[in-house]
Amino acid sequence: MSKLIGSCIIGQSGGPTSVINASAYGAIRTALDNECITKVYGAANGIKGVLNDKLYIMDEEDAKELELLKYTPSSALGSCRYKIADPDVDDTDYKRILEIFKKYDVRYFFYNGGNDSMDTCNKISKYMSRVGYECRVMGIPKTIDNDLYGTDHCPGFSSAAKYIATSIMEVYHDARVYDTGMITIIECMGRHAGWLTAAAGLATYAGEGPDLIYLPEVDFDMDKFIEDVTAIYKREGKAIVAVSEGIHYADGSFVSEAKTAATDGFGHAQLGGLAAMLANIVKEKTGAKVRGIELSLLQRCAAHCASGNDIAESFAAGKAAVENAVAGVTDKMVGFACNRENGYKCETKLFDLSDVANTEKKVPREWINKKGNGIEQGFIDYALPLIQGETGLPKENGLPRFARLKKVVAK
Amino acid sequence: MSKLIGSCIIGQSGGPTSVINASAYGAIRTALDNECITKVYGAANGIKGVLNDKLYIMDEEDAKELELLKYTPSSALGSCRYKIADPDVDDTDYKRILEIFKKYDVRYFFYNGGNDSMDTCNKISKYMSRVGYECRVMGIPKTIDNDLYGTDHCPGFSSAAKYIATSIMEVYHDARVYDTGMITIIECMGRHAGWLTAAAGLATYAGEGPDLIYLPEVDFDMDKFIEDVTAIYKREGKAIVAVSEGIHYADGSFVSEAKTAATDGFGHAQLGGLAAMLANIVKEKTGAKVRGIELSLLQRCAAHCASGNDIAESFAAGKAAVENAVAGVTDKMVGFACNRENGYKCETKLFDLSDVANTEKKVPREWINKKGNGIEQGFIDYALPLIQGETGLPKENGLPRFARLKKVVAK
Repeated sequence: MSKLIGSCIIGQSGGPTSVINASAYGAIRTALDNECITKVYGAANGIKGVLNDKLYIMDEEDAKELELLKYTPSSALGSCRYKIADPDVDDTDYKRILEIFKKYDVRYFFYNGGNDSMDTCNKISKYMSRVGYECRVMGIPKTIDNDLYGTDHCPGFSSAAKYIATSIMEVYHDARVYDTGMITIIECMGRHAGWLTAAAGLATYAGEGPDLIYLPEVDFDMDKFIEDVTAIYKREGKAIVAVSEGIHYADGSFVSEAKTAATDGFGHAQLGGLAAMLANIVKEKTGAKVRGIELSLLQRCAAHCASGNDIAESFAAGKAAVENAVAGVTDKMVGFACNRENGYKCETKLFDLSDVANTEKKVPREWINKKGNGIEQGFIDYALPLIQGETGLPKENGLPRFARLKKVVAK
Repeated sequence: MSKLIGSCIIGQSGGPTSVINASAYGAIRTALDNECITKVYGAANGIKGVLNDKLYIMDEEDAKELELLKYTPSSALGSCRYKIADPDVDDTDYKRILEIFKKYDVRYFFYNGGNDSMDTCNKISKYMSRVGYECRVMGIPKTIDNDLYGTDHCPGFSSAAKYIATSIMEVYHDARVYDTGMITIIECMGRHAGWLTAAAGLATYAGEGPDLIYLPEVDFDMDKFIEDVTAIYKREGKAIVAVSEGIHYADGSFVSEAKTAATDGFGHAQLGGLAAMLANIVKEKTGAKVRGIELSLLQRCAAHCASGNDIAESFAAGKAAVENAVAGVTDKMVGFACNRENGYKCETKLFDLSDVANTEKKVPREWINKKGNGIEQGFIDYALPLIQGETGLPKENGLPRFARLKKVVAK
């Protein structure tokens, strides 16, 4: 394999995570240090930054600020939700990308995102190959949803899981403080896959978590749900429930959808969310005091509670993407292969972009209990190693000191 | 002052905080080590535990588990919201308390709570004095609301403030990730005093916080609010707003009250909360994408993000209560006197229970900007020292290891 000399672009796409910047930093740092890579650009808002010719010069950034990316949540370069067209239907975007690649002599393209981003990578790679422009394209995964095919887990999931389990353990203590009855319903993200909600089971494993857990992998039955909650409430005087935002009835309709029919006192549609809605229903059925809590954005940006393993692995994924590309690899996503037999071992592994792009990984049915309202040990064994270790996030004046980039735009 | 020998009771009351157990531990540890105190009891669910003769023997607990109370959120002994009667109207409760005090030879009573708890302390103290039963009664403050009179600040507030500022800084990054417009509305606790919402201003001070902050200390004007948000959104493309749950119109009616008229798709009253309601209104007025986030219980139980200073001071308050009582003091609350001139210094100080019981401390008007939509430097100078330092919370399997008490009930 001949040496390929040129500049590189790193872009971030899709919903952010606590550690997507750790991956970006892994790629940026490695690229800056590599002699085959002449200049390192960060695309402003993912592929849109390429299309708009808005690239930040990473070489201009202070090394210390770049290093803080390891601990900085959200996408520091900016993100997008831009779905690139099929080049056979419309190749406008591809022509423009090629133009920009030529302008900056871009020979390496690293894209840090979820399912759709891997699809974008794949299409760009194929187009460049077809038009004979040599460019190595690598995907670096991220998604709190943990639904990417092939890889053992996705960077970002572990930190969200750690935050969810930690917060629910704290809520568990809070919710048991009075000797009066109390039911708490906690809503986690995950529209199609229940990984994040399953993470609530880690709190249960620690002895301080939900009594009931409902994932979208199992059809939701409102009557059965109320029966389950009522039984625990009657026995214990307390009940804690974790639900995925994506729970749905057997006909596929989301449980949360009913709320769209509602309006508030001003005549606007209700925005209260699933937790509030279920809390309302349970309150009426049981007469108990019920509180709904939506973990909302907090679960995907709580960098102060990130998993040390997640930060290290996310960094490693970014690093491996650059190293592999320089060594001649293209059209792959860097994922993980893990071994949990004698302690936990995690190594980077390459996956074909085309395999990853269009598959969604769900929580295996055998990791959910038979009744569909709890988590089995299999999931605990899988997830527990992922949430180990703490962040090294430095504090300034008692608050997080996140990265501050200069973002010098290339001309 | 003659030595008073006997046992003591420690009780916890009202809404929990991240550090109320640090105060309890300060009192319990000091009492266990003091030769005048023969036995240390924890009241199950505050004064209700005394009335129900349900006392836990603290002498039976493992020292290491007790020490973990410093880092364990919520009230480990259980709490209550029991309003004790005026003894002139009904002295049933007081007779029962006296009976229990005599049964266990209780000569020291420590009550860890907010406004109402100080009132309970005060009434019990006066009753015991009137009936000639020698018992020293001390209040140990706690409240995330920070609204207790006299003391510089309240144990519990600082940790909630640190969590609120930290989480909002993270949300700030998350909310700016796309190049499309976005407005985020974050609801903080504090029904009558705006201290917690003001803490959002610490994030603004760090350069990564809300553009607008609304406290209950200033009458809320919906038109002005929409005008403020719209102006920032038009200029920046993003806007972040922090609101107190207790914001109200000039006539005193809560802004959140309008929602009670609403119902969801099932015909239940809406429970969505203020943030969701304001998000809905702003969305309609601006056409922007708007997200409402309610920090909910998380802000009062997030022990993993507690302030190191808060933990140390909460412990010191519990310790001082016991030391002062043994030295002959009674009928006082232990608060803080702080000096911020040459670095931050915080010392415990005694306040008359009768002064504390019926006064509510609000955010001074001069710490809120003239427009009533932001925080002035005065508040930052006040609050910044309080959130310094980190928790020493140990982890087990990557998750918090909170105290596990045996709770052996006294016969």
